[in-house]
Amino acid sequence: MESLQKSAEEQQYTLYKDNSWPNKQESTNHYKSGVGGFVLVHAGAGYHSESKAKEYKHACKRACQQAVDQLKAGALAVEAVAAALVELEDSPFTNAGMGSNLNLSGEIECDASIMDGKSLHYGAVGAISGIKNPVLVAHRLLSEAQKGKLSAGRIPPCFLVGRGAHDWAISHGVPPCPSEKMATKFSLSAYKRNKRKMELAEKMDTGHNQTKKSRQSSGNENGLECLDTVGAVVVDLQGNVAAAVSSGGLAMKHPGRVGQAAHYGCGCWAENACNMNPYSTAVSTSGCGEHLIRTMLARECSASMQSEDAHQALLEAMQNKFIMEFLWSHTTESMCVGYMSAQDSKAKTHISRLPPGTVPGRSLAIEGGVCRLMSTASPCANEFFTLSTTLA
Amino acid sequence: MESLQKSAEEQQYTLYKDNSWPNKQESTNHYKSGVGGFVLVHAGAGYHSESKAKEYKHACKRACQQAVDQLKAGALAVEAVAAALVELEDSPFTNAGMGSNLNLSGEIECDASIMDGKSLHYGAVGAISGIKNPVLVAHRLLSEAQKGKLSAGRIPPCFLVGRGAHDWAISHGVPPCPSEKMATKFSLSAYKRNKRKMELAEKMDTGHNQTKKSRQSSGNENGLECLDTVGAVVVDLQGNVAAAVSSGGLAMKHPGRVGQAAHYGCGCWAENACNMNPYSTAVSTSGCGEHLIRTMLARECSASMQSEDAHQALLEAMQNKFIMEFLWSHTTESMCVGYMSAQDSKAKTHISRLPPGTVPGRSLAIEGGVCRLMSTASPCANEFFTLSTTLA
Repeated sequence: MESLQKSAEEQQYTLYKDNSWPNKQESTNHYKSGVGGFVLVHAGAGYHSESKAKEYKHACKRACQQAVDQLKAGALAVEAVAAALVELEDSPFTNAGMGSNLNLSGEIECDASIMDGKSLHYGAVGAISGIKNPVLVAHRLLSEAQKGKLSAGRIPPCFLVGRGAHDWAISHGVPPCPSEKMATKFSLSAYKRNKRKMELAEKMDTGHNQTKKSRQSSGNENGLECLDTVGAVVVDLQGNVAAAVSSGGLAMKHPGRVGQAAHYGCGCWAENACNMNPYSTAVSTSGCGEHLIRTMLARECSASMQSEDAHQALLEAMQNKFIMEFLWSHTTESMCVGYMSAQDSKAKTHISRLPPGTVPGRSLAIEGGVCRLMSTASPCANEFFTLSTTLA
Repeated sequence: MESLQKSAEEQQYTLYKDNSWPNKQESTNHYKSGVGGFVLVHAGAGYHSESKAKEYKHACKRACQQAVDQLKAGALAVEAVAAALVELEDSPFTNAGMGSNLNLSGEIECDASIMDGKSLHYGAVGAISGIKNPVLVAHRLLSEAQKGKLSAGRIPPCFLVGRGAHDWAISHGVPPCPSEKMATKFSLSAYKRNKRKMELAEKMDTGHNQTKKSRQSSGNENGLECLDTVGAVVVDLQGNVAAAVSSGGLAMKHPGRVGQAAHYGCGCWAENACNMNPYSTAVSTSGCGEHLIRTMLARECSASMQSEDAHQALLEAMQNKFIMEFLWSHTTESMCVGYMSAQDSKAKTHISRLPPGTVPGRSLAIEGGVCRLMSTASPCANEFFTLSTTLA
């Protein structure tokens, strides 16, 4: 009995915080001086089977490498994070871009968003079809908005959906992709299995009264197969942060449904350090859109990182201004992440799993590391703690 | 020279706060005991011409009356607020439902959302066409979500857009309305004038370099005609709060553009008093979507009302537990509001204007009142202060 639906209701995030980027005002390339960029990606919440572990890790590795290559070539965080997302979307194993979950009508509709911590600009698309890389449309919306107003003082859009989003993308040079090419053997067979499960569940319901209770209980018994959002956070050589997220949405969702990946403050958040915020923060979330929207998880994570005295004390105690901290956390069975600094020769990947005997949704795993950005002796990104706890 | 575009960039909100609903846990109808419900509506930010002042006020009055009639019949806040919005959407003078702004392609695409302060449930539609009352679709999404999961454990959507939203609405009994019936003589002639302005502005731009500067400056000289979002906040006889908002969006927007009216935390917010929040709050915003999204105005207003010591002190000083406070505020030239308690025989309406000589966008007007809910002697809703100040 598959019970992946359960995992889709939980919340998961990756985030990044630093209190220390030197010379934030300078726009010169710092790479030569040894201050490295950094990328952390995730291939979604849910359940990552052992048999496909290799593919998830490969996708994460390629995504990290893409971002780091861009950073080394002088790209800004927002460009590098888009490059990482393109790799994750292109993987047929992730629920984003190619191979996304199919909706009730058997179509692919994607959500994606991107945020630039330097300008705080934001771009998002919802329920977009026929575009292989939705994150590129979100990125283009962001960069068009940064150019200022349109003719006759019109304000450029930051969030486009459906057909209008598709047409805007095409008119701005993003290539179309026939929907049938975006579905994979895997996503099509999952759709067929899910459809059978739904029909069976509805047949069983017909025998019962359509009460609130029967509607709710069916959720526990007939979980649909479900993969989740992918995302990344990046810090560039100048210390700017950016975050992005992309998702095919819940399997068998209603056409036109938009999830947290397209919602401001819910799917991703990035904010450079400034007078009001002592830390630069970047967050990318994954999980069930409806729950993440209501918690505004990305923004809340960012805000709590700013205010958390414990973290600040920890960092100060380390007496090293050139340290940054990265974390991931999940309440789902597993989470696949990859990370790499510009000083590393290759990405590290990891599938974090809840300890045996714990219950997804009731237990929380937190893992993370610190990165000494000026050090040449030790490898940059060190996974240094894991923690799992049972939720109240 | 019209310069309404300017106003569309500003922010405006109506809100409601009380610290005092008696017997919050009881679900009996309190009306007989003299504890009244309350509604506050607004017909949008922007510029309300003197010649149409009567129509705006009438729409506000009808909306208040509808909500109060519903409350007296025992309806919950969330039902009454939807009823108020339907009246505002049906007015051909407001930019919501009938008579909405046309987009670049000459079509009407509406955003709407509704939030129930009791359950914190939320429903929203974005870029929906062919539906006379988008708020009814948002309301239906909210009430369907409250019924729990769908077959096979699927999570009901809280946010639908475009064609998918339209089809969901029809399949849930919301009547369709041909788009051509939703456009009015007024909205069609505004579209034609706006189109000419855009063409003129683009012709002028062709002569210049397409630099960032020329793109931005054109905004000040060629403002499009622009009306804004309508909204309402309601408190029912049991003390529950609800808020809703509906908008045709910016004139000449790109098809598929979704504004703050559909964004969680941006267009409206409602939260009953609970352990964590000493006050029940309900907020409905109006203004340029892109700006309101970035400030998450509705939610921020609600949060700041919770924390503002000054207000708390004021209310406590009044030593009257059965008092509630209502406010509206705008940085635009004008704002049309209406309000009514269940004890009032008719609604009061008011067009608030910035004082002569002040500059829209640089000045802020705040007006409001208190309502003694148990008193029978004095009229319930008294406008009692106005304040205008210049922003830094």
